[in-house]
Amino acid sequence: MTAPSHSHADLPAPEAADHVHSPESRKAILNRLARLEGHIRGIKNMVIEERPCPDVLIQIAAVRGALDRVARLILDEHLTQCVARAAEQGRIETEIAELKAALDRFLG
Amino acid sequence: MTAPSHSHADLPAPEAADHVHSPESRKAILNRLARLEGHIRGIKNMVIEERPCPDVLIQIAAVRGALDRVARLILDEHLTQCVARAAEQGRIETEIAELKAALDRFLG
Amino acid sequence: MTAPSHSHADLPAPEAADHVHSPESRKAILNRLARLEGHIRGIKNMVIEERPCPDVLIQIAAVRGALDRVARLILDEHLTQCVARAAEQGRIETEIAELKAALDRFLG
Amino acid sequence: MTAPSHSHADLPAPEAADHVHSPESRKAILNRLARLEGHIRGIKNMVIEERPCPDVLIQIAAVRGALDRVARLILDEHLTQCVARAAEQGRIETEIAELKAALDRFLG
Repeated sequence: MTAPSHSHADLPAPEAADHVHSPESRKAILNRLARLEGHIRGIKNMVIEERPCPDVLIQIAAVRGALDRVARLILDEHLTQCVARAAEQGRIETEIAELKAALDRFLG
Repeated sequence: MTAPSHSHADLPAPEAADHVHSPESRKAILNRLARLEGHIRGIKNMVIEERPCPDVLIQIAAVRGALDRVARLILDEHLTQCVARAAEQGRIETEIAELKAALDRFLG
Repeated sequence: MTAPSHSHADLPAPEAADHVHSPESRKAILNRLARLEGHIRGIKNMVIEERPCPDVLIQIAAVRGALDRVARLILDEHLTQCVARAAEQGRIETEIAELKAALDRFLG
Repeated sequence: MTAPSHSHADLPAPEAADHVHSPESRKAILNRLARLEGHIRGIKNMVIEERPCPDVLIQIAAVRGALDRVARLILDEHLTQCVARAAEQGRIETEIAELKAALDRFLG
């Protein structure tokens, strides 16, 4: 969540390093995505077994909710990094633009 | 999309047969779900490769859009079946309740 | 909610009569819309008084929720009328198309 | 939620009054809210005149879109202020928390 290693003012390619997730948060994000994949596989099976449409729809809504939560997790981390960089490196306008762009992506 | 086999007015367990998708539409739904699964697998790889957050978020938004479209496909088919059954079997209240329930599921 | 007067199969202009709300439900819908109007007026005052952004955002989210509920109310009534007409007049395809169109509108 | 500790009266920076919008942006926000109010009044008239449900639903969806845009405007301004304050005053954690709270409100 935090971005403790962002003091490398000499980095030639800041974009590469900027979005590094902490090992814990990357693991959490990957676990959630793996569960989502399994969830969708389960929905495929429901369709194959001709389960009632409302039952399928409720599972799709659950996947959508889980998807929004993992996106929010990623957005929150990004936001944390942007604010930290703005404070440490002073590139306020850049970070604000970066944050708005991420929001645009998130909101679709 | 249509439910051509719903003339069996004598069916003892309508729920069992009601939600049968036509082979074509079931195939279309399964294809879309399989693509979604692959899409999420791709997002996992993006996180592993530490791709920029906004790039990941845009892919998550794309999955959400695809998910909504497959849900809408299922809902439209269900709606078609409910209206057809209401017209053929006259169980208006039941079908209306069924449709509202499906909408509740879809809207989450 | 129900459409008790829809047995007039001879009506020359079905569209005009089809969407009549019952007096009670029209009153309920109008009351909700009037409350929404007042709610937005309240948000304008919050902005004039320079209230904190998160407080304003929570009120906007509340309006959005109320808006969705009134839309759902209208959609449910429409759905009820479509299913009833399909059963009474047998124009299944027309009613299905009508319902899908309403869903398209609702989902935006 | 609130920022009660922002009473540092010696601050020359406009950020001291944290949620003050610039006069132009406040005017833009108020104009949009006033238009929304008028839009809802128009929808009430549509219901009174018994206009078709799909026509009413499309207007409600338009209001929802306009509402999201005004919320996004407020959120963007808030985000700008949070990042600027983080850079100028260094209270990174506070500003991150503030931003996440605003997002929670916005996303409802």
